[in-house]
Amino acid sequence: MTGELRVTEALAEFLVASRWVDIPAAVRHEGARSLLNFVGGALGGCHDEAVSLAATVLAPFFGPAQASIIGRSERPDALNAAFLNAVSANVLEYDDTHLATVIHPAAPVVPGLLALAEQRRISGAALVHALILGVEAECRIGLAIMPTHYRRGWHITATCGIFGAAAAAGKLLGLDARRMAWALGHAATQSAGLVESLGSMSKSIGVGNAAKNGLAAALFAEAGFTAAEQAIEGRYGFAPVTSDSVDLDAITDRLGESWEILGNAYKPYPCGVVLFPVIDACLELRARHMPAPQRIAQIVVRGHPLLLERADRPAVETGREAKVSIQHSVAVALLEGAAGLAQFEDAYVADPAVRALRSKVAVEKDDSVPVESALVTLRLDDGSSFSEHVRHGRGTPGRPMSEDELDAKVRGLAAFGAPDVDAPGLIAALRAIETEPDVARIVRMTVPTR
Amino acid sequence: MTGELRVTEALAEFLVASRWVDIPAAVRHEGARSLLNFVGGALGGCHDEAVSLAATVLAPFFGPAQASIIGRSERPDALNAAFLNAVSANVLEYDDTHLATVIHPAAPVVPGLLALAEQRRISGAALVHALILGVEAECRIGLAIMPTHYRRGWHITATCGIFGAAAAAGKLLGLDARRMAWALGHAATQSAGLVESLGSMSKSIGVGNAAKNGLAAALFAEAGFTAAEQAIEGRYGFAPVTSDSVDLDAITDRLGESWEILGNAYKPYPCGVVLFPVIDACLELRARHMPAPQRIAQIVVRGHPLLLERADRPAVETGREAKVSIQHSVAVALLEGAAGLAQFEDAYVADPAVRALRSKVAVEKDDSVPVESALVTLRLDDGSSFSEHVRHGRGTPGRPMSEDELDAKVRGLAAFGAPDVDAPGLIAALRAIETEPDVARIVRMTVPTR
Repeated sequence: MTGELRVTEALAEFLVASRWVDIPAAVRHEGARSLLNFVGGALGGCHDEAVSLAATVLAPFFGPAQASIIGRSERPDALNAAFLNAVSANVLEYDDTHLATVIHPAAPVVPGLLALAEQRRISGAALVHALILGVEAECRIGLAIMPTHYRRGWHITATCGIFGAAAAAGKLLGLDARRMAWALGHAATQSAGLVESLGSMSKSIGVGNAAKNGLAAALFAEAGFTAAEQAIEGRYGFAPVTSDSVDLDAITDRLGESWEILGNAYKPYPCGVVLFPVIDACLELRARHMPAPQRIAQIVVRGHPLLLERADRPAVETGREAKVSIQHSVAVALLEGAAGLAQFEDAYVADPAVRALRSKVAVEKDDSVPVESALVTLRLDDGSSFSEHVRHGRGTPGRPMSEDELDAKVRGLAAFGAPDVDAPGLIAALRAIETEPDVARIVRMTVPTR
Repeated sequence: MTGELRVTEALAEFLVASRWVDIPAAVRHEGARSLLNFVGGALGGCHDEAVSLAATVLAPFFGPAQASIIGRSERPDALNAAFLNAVSANVLEYDDTHLATVIHPAAPVVPGLLALAEQRRISGAALVHALILGVEAECRIGLAIMPTHYRRGWHITATCGIFGAAAAAGKLLGLDARRMAWALGHAATQSAGLVESLGSMSKSIGVGNAAKNGLAAALFAEAGFTAAEQAIEGRYGFAPVTSDSVDLDAITDRLGESWEILGNAYKPYPCGVVLFPVIDACLELRARHMPAPQRIAQIVVRGHPLLLERADRPAVETGREAKVSIQHSVAVALLEGAAGLAQFEDAYVADPAVRALRSKVAVEKDDSVPVESALVTLRLDDGSSFSEHVRHGRGTPGRPMSEDELDAKVRGLAAFGAPDVDAPGLIAALRAIETEPDVARIVRMTVPTR
C-alpha cells in the first residue's frame, strides 16, 4: 500500500488521457461483448416484477421523455432511465461477472451511457471506450478494497459500480482531470448497498442507484460542483472507510497496460456457477444419445465437494431453489436440451416429468474433480451406460462463451422478456458497434415497435 | 447489546403505532420549533451557490411541477424538491444539532414531508408528528452506532438522516409495520455519505440524497417493493457494517418514553459552537456600555482550552475562516451588535474597522472555564475595564434559544436569503402549525410571490 499515492487524481488523469487508439483490439472486443451481454440481460429482465414495480413507483416523478427503457414502452428522463435499465440488466442474476471481485460490472456502467447517447450524438467507439474505462475504474477500486469490503457486508456491484458509472459518463462528457476527480468524489460520497439486501427487491435499488447516481455524479462535476480531491484514499475516503484491507496500488499498477474487462465472464445459464459443467455434460449426453426418459434408471453426477455443498437439493418447490439444485438442472437439461430462464420457472419445477427425472439423480462427492469440472453418467434399464466428462464448464475462465453462444443467450433472453424486439437485428447492430456512427439508432432498436 | 433483538421490526412497529395524543406537549412544541428552524435555514441558504448549481444540474430532469423549493421559483417533482430543500436547509451550517450524535436532524427529514403535503392534504399535527418520529428514528440509530461510525468516516447527518426521512414519510403515507420495516430496509441499503466530502460542495449531495432517497424508500415500500427484514441489525445490516461499536438497545430503550428531539439545539450564530458564549458576552458588553472603538485598548477573552484550539485565529481572509475565529467574532459582535450571516461574509472580513478591532483581541486559556462558558473583558485607553461572564452560551443545552430569539433568527435568515418572502406571516403560520388543517397553505408561503 502506497500511502502517499494520490490515486483519485491518478485514476482521473488516466481516464481523461485514454484514447481509443490506445485500447488493444481484444479489449475493445470484450467491451462490445459486455455491452451485448448487458443488452441481453436487460431484454430478459425488463418485465420482471421488480422492474415493473419500480417503474410504477417512479413514473409520477419522471421528467421529460429523454431516454429509452430497454424492452419497455416508458420513456423517462435520463436519470430515471439509468436506474430502471440497471435494475433490468441485473435482476435475473444473469449478467456479467468480474471473477476477481465478483462485481457485475456492466449493469451500473452502461445505462448512463445509453441515456447520454440519446441526448447527444455518440459513436459506438466512444461508447465502448467509455464502457471499458468505467469497468476498469470500478473493478480496480474493487480490487483495492477486497476481500474485507464484501466480507464486511458491502454489496460490491453497487458500491463500486457507482465509480464505474461516474467514470464512464465523465469520459463521454469529456470532463477534464479536475472534474473527473470530482465525479469520482461525488461517486464516493454516494456509494451504498448492503449484502443484507440480497434476496429481496431492495438489492435492485442499490444497483439502480449506482447507475443513476453515478451519472448524476458526472453531471454535477461537469457543472463545477466541487468534491473532495482524495475521495478514494483520503483519511475519511471511500477505501479506508469501507475496507479493512486497503491496497491502493491495485488502482494504479499497470494502468493502461492490463485491462480488467478481460477478466469479465458471461453466464451461459441463469443459475449457480457450480452447476455450469453439470449442465454442459447433460447437454452433451443428450446430443449424443438421449433415451426415452422412462428407460433411465439412474443419473450419477460426480463433482467437487463445493458442488454438493451448494447445490445438492433434490426436493425443490420454487424456481429460486431450482437455480441452486443439481437435480433440477440435470432433469431439465436432459429433458429439454436447455437450461434457460424458462426451465427455472416455477411451472417447470412442478412439471411431473421433470419431477420424475429429478428423483433419479444421485450425487457423488469427489475431491479429485476440480470445481470447474463434472462427470455425469446415464445408466439405462438394460444395464448400458453413457458418460460425459466436462473439464471446463462454459462461461468459466477456461472456456469463455463463444460468439455464437453469446448471441444465442441474447436471443433467448429477448424471447423470454421482450419478444416484440427484433433480436437478430439488434444483435447484428451491436456486433458492429465499433463502427456505428450514432448509438442512439441502436438504442431505439431495444424498444418494442408496438 | 442485545444480539437477538429484532430492532428494525421493533422500531417499525413503534413508528406505526405511535399516535399524536401519545406525544407530550413539550415534544410537540420542540417538533414545531425544529420545523421553524428548518424553514429559516432553507430561506437563508436557498440562493447559496451550491443550491443554485444543483438546481441547474437537475433542472433538465425535473418531473411534473409537484412541490415547492423554499425561497425559490422552481417547481420540480417531489423527489427533486426534497433533494434541493435539504441542501438549502443544511448548506449554511446553521441548522439544528442533536448534541449527543452531532446529527443535524431536520434537513433530511422535513423536505419529503413538505413535498407530500403538496400532493395530499396533510394537517400540521400529522406533519409535526411525522417529523418527531423521523428525528427519533435517525437519532436513535445514530446513538446505536456512535462513536465509531463517525470516527470511521461516515457523515452521520446523511447516513442516519435517510432513516429519519424514510420513517417520517412512511408515517405520513400510513404504512403498516411490515412496509415500514421495508422502508427502513430501503433506507439502509441507500445510506451513504463520507466525512471526506465535508468542506466541498459534495457534502450537499449526501444531505440531499438522504432526503430524496429516504422519501423514495417509503414510496417503494408503500408499493410492496420488498426489503431485508433485519436491515439494521442483521449480520450484513447497516449497524455492524458501518460501526465497530454497535449498541442496539439504544434504538429500543424507553422508546415512546424519552424523546430525542428534546436534545435538539438551534444555532443562534452561523459559526462554531465554541464561539457562542464569547459572542453572547460581547453582545452583553455592547448593550451595557459601548465605547468608541478607538478607545478600546484590548479585549481579553478567557475560555476553555478547546475554544483556543478550535478558534484562536487572528488573521482571517475569508468568511469560512471567520466562522472559526474568536478574533473576528468578537470584533463584529462589538461593532455591529450582531453575528449573523452578513457578519461572516467575505466583505466584513476585509472591512478596515473590523480588521482593526480584531487586532486588539487577546485570548487566554483557562482550564477552569467550562466549554459552554466564556469571560470577556474590555480594557479602555483610560485604564477602565468592563467584564462579562457568560455561563451558558445561547443555543447550548443550559440556555436553549428562546421563542423570540428563534423567531429573530428566522427573520434574519429570510432577510439574508429570501427577502421576497413574507417572513412574519410565515413565522406566525408555523407557530400555529399544530392546529393547521392543510400544510400546503404554509408551504406556498415559503415561495416568493413575484
